[in-house]
Amino acid sequence: MSSDQPEQRHRGRMQRKKAAVDAAITRADRDQGLLLVLTGNGKGKSSSAFGMLARALGHGMKVGVAQFIKGRSDTGEEAFFQRQPGVVWHLLGEGFTWETQNLTRDIKTAQRGWAVVREMLRDPSLGLIVLDELTYPLKYGWLEIDTVLADLKARPPMQHVVITGRGAPQALCDAADTVTELRDIKHAFRAGVRAQKGIDL
Amino acid sequence: MSSDQPEQRHRGRMQRKKAAVDAAITRADRDQGLLLVLTGNGKGKSSSAFGMLARALGHGMKVGVAQFIKGRSDTGEEAFFQRQPGVVWHLLGEGFTWETQNLTRDIKTAQRGWAVVREMLRDPSLGLIVLDELTYPLKYGWLEIDTVLADLKARPPMQHVVITGRGAPQALCDAADTVTELRDIKHAFRAGVRAQKGIDL
Repeated sequence: MSSDQPEQRHRGRMQRKKAAVDAAITRADRDQGLLLVLTGNGKGKSSSAFGMLARALGHGMKVGVAQFIKGRSDTGEEAFFQRQPGVVWHLLGEGFTWETQNLTRDIKTAQRGWAVVREMLRDPSLGLIVLDELTYPLKYGWLEIDTVLADLKARPPMQHVVITGRGAPQALCDAADTVTELRDIKHAFRAGVRAQKGIDL
Repeated sequence: MSSDQPEQRHRGRMQRKKAAVDAAITRADRDQGLLLVLTGNGKGKSSSAFGMLARALGHGMKVGVAQFIKGRSDTGEEAFFQRQPGVVWHLLGEGFTWETQNLTRDIKTAQRGWAVVREMLRDPSLGLIVLDELTYPLKYGWLEIDTVLADLKARPPMQHVVITGRGAPQALCDAADTVTELRDIKHAFRAGVRAQKGIDL
């Protein structure tokens, strides 16, 4: 038994793995503007969208962001991205609906917000658009899912859109190219740690 | 039946919801450096870590990144964050193990990488550290989990660490404050779309 047998066995296994990975990469050969949905109760949905925003900026793309629920304008993400060139940023929310406690106003705010988004979805110079926490106005019925899906479908063919929020409607997931569900396995908040700068806001 | 009854009912429901949310926020009153794990097969783990990086930079924090597997240096995230002030960025990988096909070299690369990380974990000026795809060297046994956990535990008390990658070991999840599992519900790659700039790289 030669002493380099584990090394050889590893090499053989990895050669077969590489062949399988390479074949999958060869099969995927199309370019396309993607619709991504990040949903579920776990921490990291908006963060993930903002990470893609950073990636897109790294490739010199112009990007747009619409934040639907967050009313506060002191978040780290906003402070950071607002000072980057090539970023259009819209704060469209007034806080969670249990903060406003006014249904009529929530509906008006959401619909005014969607009009702003529609303009971005018609602008082919925007390579990536983040619709942060869009699922809530959909879930509460402040926006019509059919209107939203139609506007998404009519967007420029190479424009990527990332939608975040809990409880994404099934029709939105059906229309999406990539859907990730973030499951909350454990959260520091439940252990008594409040929202931390740089992590949660 | 008064015409503003739905509005009143909504207000009542939202007042109760607000009370519950506020009570939970009051209970969570500690500040602490968090250890976060983003695992699972779904798309968005590294993106999520990079989003938190952007948040931290927005609050004026200094941050560090170590990428364990990715050997390529042409990703959007690297191009973007490397040009930001306050970012320390280390590429510690040579690609996936099925690319190198050399076990001894993979082990040496990972261990040299961890020595770099250990220095970052001893630097209290770094408010957030991303250990991107650290789970792979742990899973393949190139790094000892006990060494990694001991170094993480010894870090400055207010330093946040975010670890990404599939198949996070149970001992790592046990040590973490927040764990999110990203489930792959649907992925454009399987429909024949290749990795897209700004989304996947």
